[in-house]
Amino acid sequence: MLDIEEVKKHNTRKDCWVIIHGKAYDVSDFVDEHPGGSGVILKYAGKDATKAFDPIHPGDTLVKYLAPKYHLGPFEDYDDDEDDPPSQEELRRRQKKLDKPDLSQMYNLNDFEFVARHTMERTAWSYYSSGCDDEITLRENHASYHRVFFKPRILVDVTNIDLSTTMLGTKVSSPFYITATALGRLGHKDGEKVLTRAAAKQDIIQMIPTLASCSFDEIVDEATSEQTQWLQLYVNKDREICEKIVRHAEERGIKGLFITVDAPQLGRREKDMRSKKIEDLSHVQGDDEEADRSQGAARAISSFIDTSLNWNDIKWFRSITKMPIILKGVQTVEDSLLAVEHGLDGIVLSNHGGRQLEFSKPPLEVLIELMPILKQKGLQDKMEIYLDGGVRRATDILKAICLGAKGVGIGRPFLYAMSTYGDAGVFKAIQILKDEMVMNMRLLGVTSIDQLSEKYIDTRHFQTRYLPEDKLFGAVYEPLVSPAFKDSKL
Amino acid sequence: MLDIEEVKKHNTRKDCWVIIHGKAYDVSDFVDEHPGGSGVILKYAGKDATKAFDPIHPGDTLVKYLAPKYHLGPFEDYDDDEDDPPSQEELRRRQKKLDKPDLSQMYNLNDFEFVARHTMERTAWSYYSSGCDDEITLRENHASYHRVFFKPRILVDVTNIDLSTTMLGTKVSSPFYITATALGRLGHKDGEKVLTRAAAKQDIIQMIPTLASCSFDEIVDEATSEQTQWLQLYVNKDREICEKIVRHAEERGIKGLFITVDAPQLGRREKDMRSKKIEDLSHVQGDDEEADRSQGAARAISSFIDTSLNWNDIKWFRSITKMPIILKGVQTVEDSLLAVEHGLDGIVLSNHGGRQLEFSKPPLEVLIELMPILKQKGLQDKMEIYLDGGVRRATDILKAICLGAKGVGIGRPFLYAMSTYGDAGVFKAIQILKDEMVMNMRLLGVTSIDQLSEKYIDTRHFQTRYLPEDKLFGAVYEPLVSPAFKDSKL
Amino acid sequence: MLDIEEVKKHNTRKDCWVIIHGKAYDVSDFVDEHPGGSGVILKYAGKDATKAFDPIHPGDTLVKYLAPKYHLGPFEDYDDDEDDPPSQEELRRRQKKLDKPDLSQMYNLNDFEFVARHTMERTAWSYYSSGCDDEITLRENHASYHRVFFKPRILVDVTNIDLSTTMLGTKVSSPFYITATALGRLGHKDGEKVLTRAAAKQDIIQMIPTLASCSFDEIVDEATSEQTQWLQLYVNKDREICEKIVRHAEERGIKGLFITVDAPQLGRREKDMRSKKIEDLSHVQGDDEEADRSQGAARAISSFIDTSLNWNDIKWFRSITKMPIILKGVQTVEDSLLAVEHGLDGIVLSNHGGRQLEFSKPPLEVLIELMPILKQKGLQDKMEIYLDGGVRRATDILKAICLGAKGVGIGRPFLYAMSTYGDAGVFKAIQILKDEMVMNMRLLGVTSIDQLSEKYIDTRHFQTRYLPEDKLFGAVYEPLVSPAFKDSKL
Amino acid sequence: MLDIEEVKKHNTRKDCWVIIHGKAYDVSDFVDEHPGGSGVILKYAGKDATKAFDPIHPGDTLVKYLAPKYHLGPFEDYDDDEDDPPSQEELRRRQKKLDKPDLSQMYNLNDFEFVARHTMERTAWSYYSSGCDDEITLRENHASYHRVFFKPRILVDVTNIDLSTTMLGTKVSSPFYITATALGRLGHKDGEKVLTRAAAKQDIIQMIPTLASCSFDEIVDEATSEQTQWLQLYVNKDREICEKIVRHAEERGIKGLFITVDAPQLGRREKDMRSKKIEDLSHVQGDDEEADRSQGAARAISSFIDTSLNWNDIKWFRSITKMPIILKGVQTVEDSLLAVEHGLDGIVLSNHGGRQLEFSKPPLEVLIELMPILKQKGLQDKMEIYLDGGVRRATDILKAICLGAKGVGIGRPFLYAMSTYGDAGVFKAIQILKDEMVMNMRLLGVTSIDQLSEKYIDTRHFQTRYLPEDKLFGAVYEPLVSPAFKDSKL
Repeated sequence: MLDIEEVKKHNTRKDCWVIIHGKAYDVSDFVDEHPGGSGVILKYAGKDATKAFDPIHPGDTLVKYLAPKYHLGPFEDYDDDEDDPPSQEELRRRQKKLDKPDLSQMYNLNDFEFVARHTMERTAWSYYSSGCDDEITLRENHASYHRVFFKPRILVDVTNIDLSTTMLGTKVSSPFYITATALGRLGHKDGEKVLTRAAAKQDIIQMIPTLASCSFDEIVDEATSEQTQWLQLYVNKDREICEKIVRHAEERGIKGLFITVDAPQLGRREKDMRSKKIEDLSHVQGDDEEADRSQGAARAISSFIDTSLNWNDIKWFRSITKMPIILKGVQTVEDSLLAVEHGLDGIVLSNHGGRQLEFSKPPLEVLIELMPILKQKGLQDKMEIYLDGGVRRATDILKAICLGAKGVGIGRPFLYAMSTYGDAGVFKAIQILKDEMVMNMRLLGVTSIDQLSEKYIDTRHFQTRYLPEDKLFGAVYEPLVSPAFKDSKL
Repeated sequence: MLDIEEVKKHNTRKDCWVIIHGKAYDVSDFVDEHPGGSGVILKYAGKDATKAFDPIHPGDTLVKYLAPKYHLGPFEDYDDDEDDPPSQEELRRRQKKLDKPDLSQMYNLNDFEFVARHTMERTAWSYYSSGCDDEITLRENHASYHRVFFKPRILVDVTNIDLSTTMLGTKVSSPFYITATALGRLGHKDGEKVLTRAAAKQDIIQMIPTLASCSFDEIVDEATSEQTQWLQLYVNKDREICEKIVRHAEERGIKGLFITVDAPQLGRREKDMRSKKIEDLSHVQGDDEEADRSQGAARAISSFIDTSLNWNDIKWFRSITKMPIILKGVQTVEDSLLAVEHGLDGIVLSNHGGRQLEFSKPPLEVLIELMPILKQKGLQDKMEIYLDGGVRRATDILKAICLGAKGVGIGRPFLYAMSTYGDAGVFKAIQILKDEMVMNMRLLGVTSIDQLSEKYIDTRHFQTRYLPEDKLFGAVYEPLVSPAFKDSKL
Repeated sequence: MLDIEEVKKHNTRKDCWVIIHGKAYDVSDFVDEHPGGSGVILKYAGKDATKAFDPIHPGDTLVKYLAPKYHLGPFEDYDDDEDDPPSQEELRRRQKKLDKPDLSQMYNLNDFEFVARHTMERTAWSYYSSGCDDEITLRENHASYHRVFFKPRILVDVTNIDLSTTMLGTKVSSPFYITATALGRLGHKDGEKVLTRAAAKQDIIQMIPTLASCSFDEIVDEATSEQTQWLQLYVNKDREICEKIVRHAEERGIKGLFITVDAPQLGRREKDMRSKKIEDLSHVQGDDEEADRSQGAARAISSFIDTSLNWNDIKWFRSITKMPIILKGVQTVEDSLLAVEHGLDGIVLSNHGGRQLEFSKPPLEVLIELMPILKQKGLQDKMEIYLDGGVRRATDILKAICLGAKGVGIGRPFLYAMSTYGDAGVFKAIQILKDEMVMNMRLLGVTSIDQLSEKYIDTRHFQTRYLPEDKLFGAVYEPLVSPAFKDSKL
Repeated sequence: MLDIEEVKKHNTRKDCWVIIHGKAYDVSDFVDEHPGGSGVILKYAGKDATKAFDPIHPGDTLVKYLAPKYHLGPFEDYDDDEDDPPSQEELRRRQKKLDKPDLSQMYNLNDFEFVARHTMERTAWSYYSSGCDDEITLRENHASYHRVFFKPRILVDVTNIDLSTTMLGTKVSSPFYITATALGRLGHKDGEKVLTRAAAKQDIIQMIPTLASCSFDEIVDEATSEQTQWLQLYVNKDREICEKIVRHAEERGIKGLFITVDAPQLGRREKDMRSKKIEDLSHVQGDDEEADRSQGAARAISSFIDTSLNWNDIKWFRSITKMPIILKGVQTVEDSLLAVEHGLDGIVLSNHGGRQLEFSKPPLEVLIELMPILKQKGLQDKMEIYLDGGVRRATDILKAICLGAKGVGIGRPFLYAMSTYGDAGVFKAIQILKDEMVMNMRLLGVTSIDQLSEKYIDTRHFQTRYLPEDKLFGAVYEPLVSPAFKDSKL
């Protein structure tokens, strides 16, 4: 058995040990080859790196990439907190985690976010919850739903309500899916596999993210034989790697390829940056080095995602796969029409959950503009239209479908459910939405998804936007004050 | 005399005693036949069930349904609090109740709600005050009135103001009525009878609810001979029961049958669910069992209300009664026109006080859309149009009438007045509205209800909605912060 | 010298003494003849009635109406507080009054209101500041100015700025006047005379209120020989009294008769009612008796103001006076046109400062609608148009004049200036407005009042209203909450 | 060496010594000739005047204007605080200054403002941050950007992003410049020279202010040989002085003359006035004497800026310089067209950062109105259009350019960066904007500035204004309250 004091001595680039999941490893020879850069490893030289390691490495990484001779084995139990005593805030968080409300107290998706905000590790919460710039788009995504009202019909026989529909040919139990979100292990040790299991039980589709914590195969292996999964793809500059990923996905039975087109460069999210240990995730953000940052962090990311991806590449994707191809991140009517022209099977109207370009219009707004134009051109059935971002209630889903969407993707709420209550949490979150769906369809006077249409919707006041507050600008503004009384006791 | 300790021993399904109004009853043989389910009884096995029993059972229930042999008789006085010590919050509430402001301090309907919020039992307050989802509709119902402004005329002789009008043929002292709301005994031991008495004194109409705490006959018996009452009906799947109710109502002199059409399933109200003892009311909500909830609470309610009710049923209602038939819960222009077509005597534009479908349009908005269409088709006199939801001021009532309503229904405010100051409270609340009516008609330059018309109204800015805040979404959102100063004293 | 203990004994209707300004009076024989009712006198039987007496009686009242034999003379100094110890709030107010900021710290009209709110007696503050219902109209009056933007012109020679203009033939130094407001002695012992003196020094017009604390003649006597005063008139049912008032005003040199037409009944203002000693002012409000209130306080006021006043009466006014006649309180385009038709010399667009009918449109909004119609009919020069309500900045005044007003009336701000800093305060408040006027005209690129026109104004976004919050409704609403953590430490 | 006690004795007009930068000077003979008035000098008679002296005098002032005989030399170190002990607030500020966050924690321009607000001297902060009247225009300038949304295009090769553009013929690295702002030494001892150096390193243009703390030549001397600078000009009544300034600027290589046209009189800014030592800056504000203020401070400023400047003067400016001439402070479409007519080289749409006329429209709004009209008349290339005011994010800049601006000016944010982190701060602030620019152009689907156009912009909802709150009016308003419970514990 190793001694922790021994490990602490190996804390230089030349002699670098780290602890991961209670075992020590000698990574001295590996430091300079680490795809994520040497900086993040050296930060943990002689220390426990588990928390930084987990969210971004599949479970078999060490076995696969580090020769056995570097595996130094387990060592005596030690208290990580001893070296790095937790802050008051962290101690409060841990207590909160113990005191969290029972799952039965979760009545809506916001409740999971509430518990997550108070119990998740700061780093993880910040990564999941953050958006770009002033997070106006992030909030407007949800707020836009408030601008649409219902026209509920009465005296309709609503005894039997059927929520099922089809998506890209798959029959599903309800018109929403779990969309791709990165780094599932930040919230739960099983990462994306939790979502896989819940999706199976609830018979909805899961979209597997490129930046998953679990490996693609781990996630697919977790699925049942009847379960449908899709793949979200960040296109790599190296088209061989890209092709390999796509072909492998098709072989493993993936039923839809969702190419992300709203992120030629990953967004800069200040809430995330403010959270203390964010440097550990920096290779994802391209923010690894202060030096680089001052030169423009934005330029450092080109190795990761292909900034040259363009419409001409669609043909190539068609040539390497028979899977339906969908563009994820369409933000305008113009590009939606181009997508039809290029024969795509679908689009996801999305601004990446408000994490990329601030003031990109909320997807619901694009949908409202798009559908009349598609219908006028007779193109409304040429591809399936999805949207994601800001969905929290069944009423949101119903509005999107009434307005022409085939279904909606939901991301963060399921991450929060996973991070707080694991499998049961995600199952419950999905169930809440289904219960709300049944209730609201009944109250709306419809009994099946295909009956939902514009006649149940009032968008007359849609032009009145209720823009979320610019919190930073508002907070730094010093309001005028009235004259001070002399004793200043007022 | 019984001993309380003795009662406590009979706390199983096979041997089940409960205390109600200071008397013990053996309900062992009855548990499984209880229409509200056995769960709620077993919860009180060996305990005092008065508070759970009262709001949902007419006063003669035990006499009627429980054979004398099960009446175990009274027993020594005991303190209910001993077993279930009140929380700090509950103690504060009780103190508040003692300290409540004098009735003379009530200047408007909001004041009653204020006192109610702080003095009513948590369960009762939550049941009365709650709405569906994020309660946006609940608040928008009131807020919509703010979008209408007056065009007051000057130099009119306004010495004599006459508030009287007629509703379904009845002459009334003022153009508003007490609408049907469930479970009156949650707020006052006399339940709906308090409202009956106040309506009589003030010469306005009371609509009797299907889900009253008092029995229908108790409420009708309480009325004076000149008093007009209407009946609100949740249509039972069993049409024989339904017919019996309707025919009995007509025999007892009810002057209008208001069929509720906005609630094929009763809404899920989270504020209500969060309140502690809500399980006692669960059979109303269909939320009685966690097990069921996880499977979709929405499906459990079909036994109570007929989800298949539709336009074809109107004819049948006509065949069993001569009472005027009115649809309560119409939410669109389309259904209003269908109501005319089906020969109904009236409609109530209502979204059930924001308790059913979130984002159903506020009734005032539907009215503003509806009237020009009815007039264009020459149908404006074919039926009487009422509305309810969000009315708090005489100005609200005047706006509705100017825009074409025959009258408005008011529910919660009278419940709050009843729950805080009983008979005198409801009388005062009605009087406040009448005083405001006289004052405001005078200032508007009109002297009688029939003079009120669109010419006194400016709806030019009606399209600017001031949407109530999404409180939960807003509360879970973590605002961006400015960088921390090092000493964090800022 | 009298002994205070002696006075206290005379505290019945039959034997009633009161103290006013340090002297005792026997009012036993007068109680039942008091025009304001006996109730208010009896309330002070055996006590000091100065504070209740002052605001509503001219200074010579006792001399005039109470025979010398009832004047019991002065008595030993005593401390009024002894009987009625001041509340903590009152003590804080008195301290604040001592500590008030120097006049030089007043930078705008809001500053006076701020000091007034914290230093004025509760009763007085409440009477001055209150509005009707939820005070939405009161606030909207000001907020409506925010919907108008300027189109300032550059490169204009703005060296010499001339603020002078004429109103009803009088040359004035600036296009605003001190409008009529009741009960000036609530705020300052000299009452309306303070405003008279400041108006003289600043060469602007004062409108004398019917409900002044000082008598009409006291106010006119206070004026300089060059000073112009107008008279605001509440029309008395007894036309002889009315005629007497009007003829006397004309004789005393009044230059304009402003007939109030927005108050056939005086408004019910809840903030005012909530303030403790408001019963002393009750005869003004018609709220003197609880008994009456429950029957509808609104009906009690008819003796005071003629509710039958109508357009036909205008002719009669013309027959008894040569003064220009102006209607104060016009609230619609329709009535403005009727005013032209009836040959009136002017109108004041006003909703009585938001004290009468809630949701009466803000005067600026009526002006914006009115002017194009007047111009289209060629009537824009037939009468002078004024407005009042919500004016706080020179920019407000400039907007009103650009849009067609001849001038604006300002009420409360001058009352606050008077109540806090007396003569110097009102002078300064007027001066602030003038300074702002010069500055802003220069920045707008105009040099004289007659250059102001619609071309300097942008009303394009006027339709977006920013409605003030419904504070009571908002405050009684209980927001939804997220689930509670178990330890409730959150 | 002098003794501080000695200096204190010379504290009269006849015998007046002051300390500046640790040296004493005898200014007795100079007091009456001081261009800023004698008042401000006398205030510091016998005291340290450094803080009041620095921001408004170039570094060589004393050498230039005060004969050596008056230079009394240095003296023993003393503690300024001893005479004038700092307030608690000042002590907190000094501590904050020590504890300020690392520069690396600055993520956006608001962050600099946040640190500035808490660490700058009260006087300086107030002078920089204040606006006119209720500062609604100041905030609306920024808020107006929120009304414009993007239409981002996908699948565009965005590998290489070029931010460079040209302004008045100068190639610059990014489409924004440092606009002219007064009194740089209030925030940093090097004043405007800090901005000069950062502009050089970042290859952007600096506009030199007339009211700089450093002399014009100091600022120009600080520039590199390749660096471009512009000059902002307040036109002096004395045209000889004016001509001298302009000719000198041209000789020194200035590349653009920006004539300020929105400030015939400098604005009255209440936040600034409330700050304690503002009297020291009074000659700039024209607010030096209470006596004068009461007569209208507005009239005192004519000696400083030519209020008669008008369109006819443009020709004269053309006659004395070959520099491009630009009008700074155009606020309407009408004046923009006049600028074209008068052959100007450009305009800056600006309301002086909300410091002059309240309710002048935000520049972005004027731009949106202007461009279609210019294009319709074929005038869009006749002059370059800039704007300033409220720019905080690269998205703001991108919106302005998409809508037709050639570039934007940024003032306060760079002052805050300078005042908190000096050279490194300003460099970083510029770099943040550039990084945001690259990121956002990539996400928008454009690679160079000239591609930016209206097709990337959605102004459909622009008409919905979100007007900033009227803070003073809101703060003095006393909300209605519900009735009080008797024990008032509520």
